[in-house]
Amino acid sequence: MNYRFSDPVAGLKPSAIREILKNSGDTIPLSAGNPAPDAFPVSDVKEITAKILEEEPILALQYGVTEGYDPLIAELTKLAHEHYGVGTDNDSIIVVSGATQIMSLVSQVFLNPGDTVICEEPSFIGSLNCFRAHGARLVGVPVESDGIDVDALEETLKKESGAKFIYTIPNFQNPSGATMSFEKRKRMYALARQYGVLILEDNPYGDLRVAGDDVPAIKSLDTDGLVIYAGSFSKIIAPGIRVGFVVSPSEISAKLTVAKQTQDVHTTMLSQLLVYKWLKAGKIEDHIKKIKDIYRRKLNLMCDSMDAQLSDYLTYHRPEGGLFVWAKLNKGIDMIDYVKTASKNGVSVVPGNAFLIDSSAPCDYIRLNFSTPSDEGIVEGIKLLKETAEKMR
Amino acid sequence: MNYRFSDPVAGLKPSAIREILKNSGDTIPLSAGNPAPDAFPVSDVKEITAKILEEEPILALQYGVTEGYDPLIAELTKLAHEHYGVGTDNDSIIVVSGATQIMSLVSQVFLNPGDTVICEEPSFIGSLNCFRAHGARLVGVPVESDGIDVDALEETLKKESGAKFIYTIPNFQNPSGATMSFEKRKRMYALARQYGVLILEDNPYGDLRVAGDDVPAIKSLDTDGLVIYAGSFSKIIAPGIRVGFVVSPSEISAKLTVAKQTQDVHTTMLSQLLVYKWLKAGKIEDHIKKIKDIYRRKLNLMCDSMDAQLSDYLTYHRPEGGLFVWAKLNKGIDMIDYVKTASKNGVSVVPGNAFLIDSSAPCDYIRLNFSTPSDEGIVEGIKLLKETAEKMR
Repeated sequence: MNYRFSDPVAGLKPSAIREILKNSGDTIPLSAGNPAPDAFPVSDVKEITAKILEEEPILALQYGVTEGYDPLIAELTKLAHEHYGVGTDNDSIIVVSGATQIMSLVSQVFLNPGDTVICEEPSFIGSLNCFRAHGARLVGVPVESDGIDVDALEETLKKESGAKFIYTIPNFQNPSGATMSFEKRKRMYALARQYGVLILEDNPYGDLRVAGDDVPAIKSLDTDGLVIYAGSFSKIIAPGIRVGFVVSPSEISAKLTVAKQTQDVHTTMLSQLLVYKWLKAGKIEDHIKKIKDIYRRKLNLMCDSMDAQLSDYLTYHRPEGGLFVWAKLNKGIDMIDYVKTASKNGVSVVPGNAFLIDSSAPCDYIRLNFSTPSDEGIVEGIKLLKETAEKMR
Repeated sequence: MNYRFSDPVAGLKPSAIREILKNSGDTIPLSAGNPAPDAFPVSDVKEITAKILEEEPILALQYGVTEGYDPLIAELTKLAHEHYGVGTDNDSIIVVSGATQIMSLVSQVFLNPGDTVICEEPSFIGSLNCFRAHGARLVGVPVESDGIDVDALEETLKKESGAKFIYTIPNFQNPSGATMSFEKRKRMYALARQYGVLILEDNPYGDLRVAGDDVPAIKSLDTDGLVIYAGSFSKIIAPGIRVGFVVSPSEISAKLTVAKQTQDVHTTMLSQLLVYKWLKAGKIEDHIKKIKDIYRRKLNLMCDSMDAQLSDYLTYHRPEGGLFVWAKLNKGIDMIDYVKTASKNGVSVVPGNAFLIDSSAPCDYIRLNFSTPSDEGIVEGIKLLKETAEKMR
């Protein structure tokens, strides 16, 4: 049978990364993006889950409403306001099955095939693929060490007046690690207002700051109902529970709810009850402090190792948080060749072109992750990257 | 801000049912579709969940692969084959976050805006809305007491040669309660093959047969890679866990996986592990026997009460399973008026027009549900429906 797939899905190319990393199964995984397992609040999860199934098993097992469990929404409203500084009376919150679902819901609610989405370049491949799967035309704007190039953004907005939204990861961007300065956030917001374009602000890593000061969310500036804020518990509690939340103008939230009803009806009830009771018990601030210590140690271990061993081969900006280091290989080292050779030598990193809109464009960057490997894995991985570069010389 | 929503989402009408049932909060809910809470295997869930979080907490909390947890897929492959009679070497299985996600994934993978989907009429509003949200043009084919009118289906296929798929709920259809005969299933499959159209076979209620004999799935006839089979644990274990599975030709499964990655990355790990260990422990057959007893009692209680009290006002076919009774009001009773008056009198049912493609078309049917209310609720609800009819006379 010759299947007649939809145009956007038929047009999706097989992943170049997958091909390159196909045989990286037994390597040290500096290519992944999993949170560190020792950052999971395992004993809280055990205790709270047992309590839920003891006291409210039917609530945990029955259908729930699409918007999310009401008491959880109340806790999230408080958290969004007090902890993230986002959400006004014009906004409402819905609970989603991980922040990726927000990209999917926003795409479904806003994109007609051929519509333009403006994104940082490089940017998170998962989100780019989601927009692509909805037939979006992606237009990239370069990322600098203090976030998106706002002059280039203005030029792009002048040309792309019909663009539906700007997709940004302002904190510890994936893959660049860059954090957008407050000045740039204000400028982006003003531009969005001027050009009548929405902002989709994705903040999965915001709590993983290990140096420097927090920068207010773009959503905190949102007096005009222009910003959709994507929050996630994947890096705070754990990704396997699939819980995120979206703060957006109520008119948009209503449409996102309709779309969510057609996608998965509602988010797993036990996961929602777990997050609710965990927040309600006031666990979050201490836990974030604890995981920041873990990520600070791992980030510094990776960067110190890189400084000691790789400074002849690559350059990078030390990020102030997040999960990733984005490094530029020195002239003369072919990036694709380097990634393939490294994989054969026992360490995997992600080729930077994967994060470009046109993944066949030339790219000298690699992305390294420090949250998935053990501390020993980080040290050994960087050593293998050095040996790879030496061999190739 | 004037939000520019996508065409299909902007075109979705507010639900007529919601308006009618708005004030049905304190009524006896014959309008719902929740499984009976006493059908949930609560003690199994408690015990297995505790074991998982004790023995494999990191597996339960970390990211999983999009296709689903491998050992669960192996169990589902066995279950699909042995219990449902579906799945060949050409098929593969992916785990989804409830069967509704299958409708969403299939829509994303196959539908361009304006594409035609052929469905039974009446049919499940949730699926119809999902197809609508992807810009589908719905074409209905009447349902008879032994399932879809296959002659009308053939006429429709002749006219709609570009249709992407036929959506069917062959067992205890929602809302009609009808089960498609094996003869009709074979004819539908032959027609699909002849006209080069896929079949999306949705089987959420198949295990809830309380009378008569099982009929083989359409997917069991699938020698040509034409059938996508949607299975669900919502009515067998519980809906709050959000676990379903799709059996489809591997080429289609690969595209569904890509789409799922953009929707929610993967299904909640704890839910997947729970279903895996529950199946592995061989719990399913005894449990289905147990819930059949519950649903048989409730179905018969409702139908016997209807026979005793409502035979002057409506007619219906007693279904052999599922969750719903589809009843036609006698001439002279205005359906919308009746549903509204019943709601004021303390009992809610769903107006049948909600399940039509054009919900403004005339309709004499109401849908009653016997799984959500208690036994006393069923008896009291039917009594109130009788009083409503008497009052309106």
